[in-house]
Amino acid sequence: MKRIKVLPVPKPIETEGLIVLVDILRATSTIVTALSCGALRVKPVASIEEALLYSKQDYLLAGERECVPPEGFQAGNSPIEAQNFAQAKVVLTTTNGTKALSFVKRAKAICAGAFLNLAAVSKFAERFEEVTVLCAGTNGDLSLEDFLWAGKFLGYLFNYERENDAAIVAFEYAREISDILKEIIKSPHARRLEKFGFYKDIEFCARLNIYNTVPILTSEGFVGIEVT
Amino acid sequence: MKRIKVLPVPKPIETEGLIVLVDILRATSTIVTALSCGALRVKPVASIEEALLYSKQDYLLAGERECVPPEGFQAGNSPIEAQNFAQAKVVLTTTNGTKALSFVKRAKAICAGAFLNLAAVSKFAERFEEVTVLCAGTNGDLSLEDFLWAGKFLGYLFNYERENDAAIVAFEYAREISDILKEIIKSPHARRLEKFGFYKDIEFCARLNIYNTVPILTSEGFVGIEVT
Repeated sequence: MKRIKVLPVPKPIETEGLIVLVDILRATSTIVTALSCGALRVKPVASIEEALLYSKQDYLLAGERECVPPEGFQAGNSPIEAQNFAQAKVVLTTTNGTKALSFVKRAKAICAGAFLNLAAVSKFAERFEEVTVLCAGTNGDLSLEDFLWAGKFLGYLFNYERENDAAIVAFEYAREISDILKEIIKSPHARRLEKFGFYKDIEFCARLNIYNTVPILTSEGFVGIEVT
Repeated sequence: MKRIKVLPVPKPIETEGLIVLVDILRATSTIVTALSCGALRVKPVASIEEALLYSKQDYLLAGERECVPPEGFQAGNSPIEAQNFAQAKVVLTTTNGTKALSFVKRAKAICAGAFLNLAAVSKFAERFEEVTVLCAGTNGDLSLEDFLWAGKFLGYLFNYERENDAAIVAFEYAREISDILKEIIKSPHARRLEKFGFYKDIEFCARLNIYNTVPILTSEGFVGIEVT
């Protein structure tokens, strides 16, 4: 039987299977949107300094620190802004999403999941015997929206053994939630984003299955493939 | 408003309030049972070597490694065996529960929670403005049974703000669960204990509110106070 695991917060991980990175507010929602709207690639980097190096290579700089774009950046870590990234090579630095990737020691493939492409990621995941959902969390703590995504994702997969307790809990928690936006907005992190004026981003991130694009991590960054 | 946080897995913690240690299978269930049944104190220690030092001081040695008692120990980490600990000074070493305590840097008080004393711990907790549930987890991963306890505990508390996402998720997950044993037995950890012959212990750990004892950590170990 195929197997699935959920990591509620990042920890070192080695797998022969697929890793689905989830950072709903807002990194993976931004990556999915950018690639769905025609961005050529999205390169995740850890630091602002590293991102700035790319600006000389014709990259569009996007990202955030404390919710807002760093100086010299053209865009925030915003899926709404990412709709305008057609034809751009994007470099993206975010607080938690990029950091989570540094925990991956080995994997057959890494893709990015969001509510925006949940069904497409589920279809893609079914090609793998082992799937691990890597929730980015917030500063090392569980994020409601990432964990909710993990649970909803489990609801889309058939014939997978839920291999760890977090997978069982995420599935049962998510099963009872029908209004994604209403649930996400409960989290302190979402309320903080709202205070910074990003309510429309949260609303956007809560939309379900509007894209068929699955971002796949390559050495050049995330590139989009269509899965239908 | 009073505040409550849930840590699904141990991490360094400093608080001016109460920490409730939870290791349902089986450390805190054993501690609660021992003290409810007349044990004088239960001293948690990290290593087998440290536990063995106490045997010269007239302590009863209890604990487990890989589910079973280490050599030279009089008892396992078993609440059913702990019913016979009347008048004993007990030293207890367990894999996860004791380790979780090492993450506490500062706290006003530390107590131990189990389903066996859930209502009593809730009443005790209401004396504090800040409460943190420290789930022991299993080797650094979320444990279903500890997280379920955290959620049920939140259901017993009134007028507390759920301060982090894990508290919100735990509450909503636990709200839908009415049969504690049926839920706990889903976890790989419980199934492993069952395989080692400890089904009756799991069944015992799932019993609700059979004791009014709240174990409080002192320099001498956990001592019991009655809360009604």
